[in-house]
Amino acid sequence: MPKYTKKDFDTHKVRRFLEPGPIVLVSSAHKGETNIMTMGWHMIMEFEPSLIGCYIWTENHSFEMIRRSKQCVINIPTVDLAAKVVKIGNSSGREIDKFSEFGLTPKPGTHVRAPLIDECYANFECRLADSSLIRKYSLFVLEVVKAHVATSPKYPRTIHYRGDGEFMISGTNTSRYRKLFRPQML
Amino acid sequence: MPKYTKKDFDTHKVRRFLEPGPIVLVSSAHKGETNIMTMGWHMIMEFEPSLIGCYIWTENHSFEMIRRSKQCVINIPTVDLAAKVVKIGNSSGREIDKFSEFGLTPKPGTHVRAPLIDECYANFECRLADSSLIRKYSLFVLEVVKAHVATSPKYPRTIHYRGDGEFMISGTNTSRYRKLFRPQML
Repeated sequence: MPKYTKKDFDTHKVRRFLEPGPIVLVSSAHKGETNIMTMGWHMIMEFEPSLIGCYIWTENHSFEMIRRSKQCVINIPTVDLAAKVVKIGNSSGREIDKFSEFGLTPKPGTHVRAPLIDECYANFECRLADSSLIRKYSLFVLEVVKAHVATSPKYPRTIHYRGDGEFMISGTNTSRYRKLFRPQML
Repeated sequence: MPKYTKKDFDTHKVRRFLEPGPIVLVSSAHKGETNIMTMGWHMIMEFEPSLIGCYIWTENHSFEMIRRSKQCVINIPTVDLAAKVVKIGNSSGREIDKFSEFGLTPKPGTHVRAPLIDECYANFECRLADSSLIRKYSLFVLEVVKAHVATSPKYPRTIHYRGDGEFMISGTNTSRYRKLFRPQML
């Protein structure tokens, strides 16, 4: 399993890791219980405050835990964790303790009570910023209030879901097009 | 420039190409004018109807065109078009005709008046399904009403933006984890 040394990261720059669209693990805590869910439907919504829109299905055990505790952590797993990511998505926190079942390490956060998943490349502590779209769209608008990112490698090898059991694994990173950008459009 | 033969595709399965998080080109038409914008902030919101949430900045010329015409096309460019994608993002439809300026071919859609970009791997014709989140979040909830996807290759080499002029290019596709999924979780 991967072991990362992490440092604080600018919360307004989490797009660097989320905008490319990886599958993420969302960890939560409520009334002495913790849980983890696999999530593929999310998007950046704002830089400042650092807002992320997340679709969480009402049937997920995490749905009520996050809605009630108003907190969670978005964790970015790398391809080494792909099998665990699938198994976490297959199982329910109603029946098992996912941290213990899948041998993952819960690490205390600094701004929320939900635990970070230590084996993930990055951990973004989030507060529920707007609950008004939950009923209609299962859409949680979260604000990233603290970010922890691995010091190496520069970019993680992330897994991106296509549905039907197929993943795309992130490929090459390039700044060769950077010179074409107008500075204000970066 | 890429040249694709396309066929009709199930609108409820567009996640196959959007959920991995590529940069897309959004084409629109309003009052005899067409335009193209580059978009990185989007997410799947529902399978049936096939809903996509899209953040469109108020300063974009496309913002009013899509809001007023209530239609657009989400086009998926491959890495061959990366330089054009950047230049489209850098420029404004207020000043130039982007189809002509960047040598792209507008192709009539079947369900909307916005043109498809023929050189893209896939084209998803969309109608504005919900405008109520535009004011607060610049969030357009679009419904995919018709999808056209290239017959080959099976998956496109897409570009995924990290901010700061850096892209991730999609890598390997794999179904090796498929056997771990419970059928209902695919």
